[in-house]
Amino acid sequence: MKLVRYGEPGQEKPGLIDSAGTLRDLSAHVGDITGAVLSDAALERLRALDPASLPAVQGNPRFGPCVGQIGKMCCIGLNYSDHAAETGAQIPEHPILFMKATSAIVGPNDTVVMPRGSKATDWEIELGVVIGKTAKYVSEADALDHVAGYCIVNDVSERDFQNKLTGQWTKGKSCDTFGPTGPWLVTRDEVADPQNLAMALDVNGQRRQTGNTSTMIFNVRQIIAHLSSLFTLHPGDVIATGTPPGVGLGMKPQPVFLKAGDVMELTIEGLGQQRQTVKADD
Amino acid sequence: MKLVRYGEPGQEKPGLIDSAGTLRDLSAHVGDITGAVLSDAALERLRALDPASLPAVQGNPRFGPCVGQIGKMCCIGLNYSDHAAETGAQIPEHPILFMKATSAIVGPNDTVVMPRGSKATDWEIELGVVIGKTAKYVSEADALDHVAGYCIVNDVSERDFQNKLTGQWTKGKSCDTFGPTGPWLVTRDEVADPQNLAMALDVNGQRRQTGNTSTMIFNVRQIIAHLSSLFTLHPGDVIATGTPPGVGLGMKPQPVFLKAGDVMELTIEGLGQQRQTVKADD
Repeated sequence: MKLVRYGEPGQEKPGLIDSAGTLRDLSAHVGDITGAVLSDAALERLRALDPASLPAVQGNPRFGPCVGQIGKMCCIGLNYSDHAAETGAQIPEHPILFMKATSAIVGPNDTVVMPRGSKATDWEIELGVVIGKTAKYVSEADALDHVAGYCIVNDVSERDFQNKLTGQWTKGKSCDTFGPTGPWLVTRDEVADPQNLAMALDVNGQRRQTGNTSTMIFNVRQIIAHLSSLFTLHPGDVIATGTPPGVGLGMKPQPVFLKAGDVMELTIEGLGQQRQTVKADD
Repeated sequence: MKLVRYGEPGQEKPGLIDSAGTLRDLSAHVGDITGAVLSDAALERLRALDPASLPAVQGNPRFGPCVGQIGKMCCIGLNYSDHAAETGAQIPEHPILFMKATSAIVGPNDTVVMPRGSKATDWEIELGVVIGKTAKYVSEADALDHVAGYCIVNDVSERDFQNKLTGQWTKGKSCDTFGPTGPWLVTRDEVADPQNLAMALDVNGQRRQTGNTSTMIFNVRQIIAHLSSLFTLHPGDVIATGTPPGVGLGMKPQPVFLKAGDVMELTIEGLGQQRQTVKADD
């Protein structure tokens, strides 16, 4: 299933995308797409519905983040071997974790706003993992049983805030609108292998990032097992699993960052597309 | 006012502590103590109630975190000049920010659970600032208008997870139960000067931390202004403003950490007391 949330910010309704690509309303069956409806049993009930029996949604509504009430967004840093090689960084011994404030999360096609004073806003396409079942002290072998599905996350990053404000990375990761998430939550039964998904990000039609989840240093199983040894992952939590090569910070001969009017387009195999226009905050 | 949430985890009811120290039920007036009821106008409506008209709560119920549905817990590191001096750390140029996962937040007297493998669980008494009014690009002069009130936070920290797991600090700060918050949300009208509050933490009856919010490097106004230049602070967000000297990591001749059965007692002038027993996870 491809689950979505559509409508104005804060008033999103639940929906699904049927096999013909039509958006259909799930409001009669669930209140919202949140952790509460991401268990295997709850997803099975939705899967049992005949999509043709659900009202087709007219027009082209906005998509919201594909999960509502995200409890925490755990982000893994430097998690692609080809990206680490590109930047000259050492391969980390454990997954590097930082948190993105959930107040940064927006819809997949919402405007990305560079905060006042920003000179180094950058892009990062990432595979998002949506937790469906509570995970604590989970083994790698069992880890994927705790996944409801997958989505695209753009881990937008202000590099000066991240690296020059005497802070942890979270400063540059948590600006409002810095977490486009969606368009779809694709349930895990439709993702044959989360470690073999092609991914690409364009800026103004120019390819900037090309990657595949096969080059992750720590795969999804390992990340879930590690995080769940530290704290509980709850249904509706999202893990952004790191970005492949090609971010603006790494461009030669010098870094290239976003400017007002730029358009980012992101795609991960089977997970749909995102498209954001960039603006500067007044 | 001293606002509280009482009852079993996840089922807390709103209450207040009257001038005689009696817990009274606010359920007839608000659904919960969350960001939605922390605006000046909403607090004024509660203040207009005659506490004697509210039902007194019988027995000794558990206190929950004094704010429900906390959107983000922003934590400031190394923010006391005497603590920085003690550790030999340089005075930071800007407030150091990390996030504590909101899934770590518990009631003020709940058990603190050391995760499996923990050998370095430590204490940190901190002044918690509860946001009442949306703050974005706020000046230092206006910052306190955005504060609903204050509370105690124990920023419990696993030092090995924090420093040795190739991660950002958040790993050692986000373990389940590592965020006791409360007992009371004391509204800002009752805190004459947030920069002149005595604070103390005991372990097993021995004084470990003694401090005063007067030695903060970045005061509450500066912290709110800085954070609000990075992202929006929403009603119900909490800022933990750093800890004074005396953490276990800094003890001489060698660090001393918590062990099962230890009891932490925390107090900040005017904000009540916390008391947690420590256990090891099975």
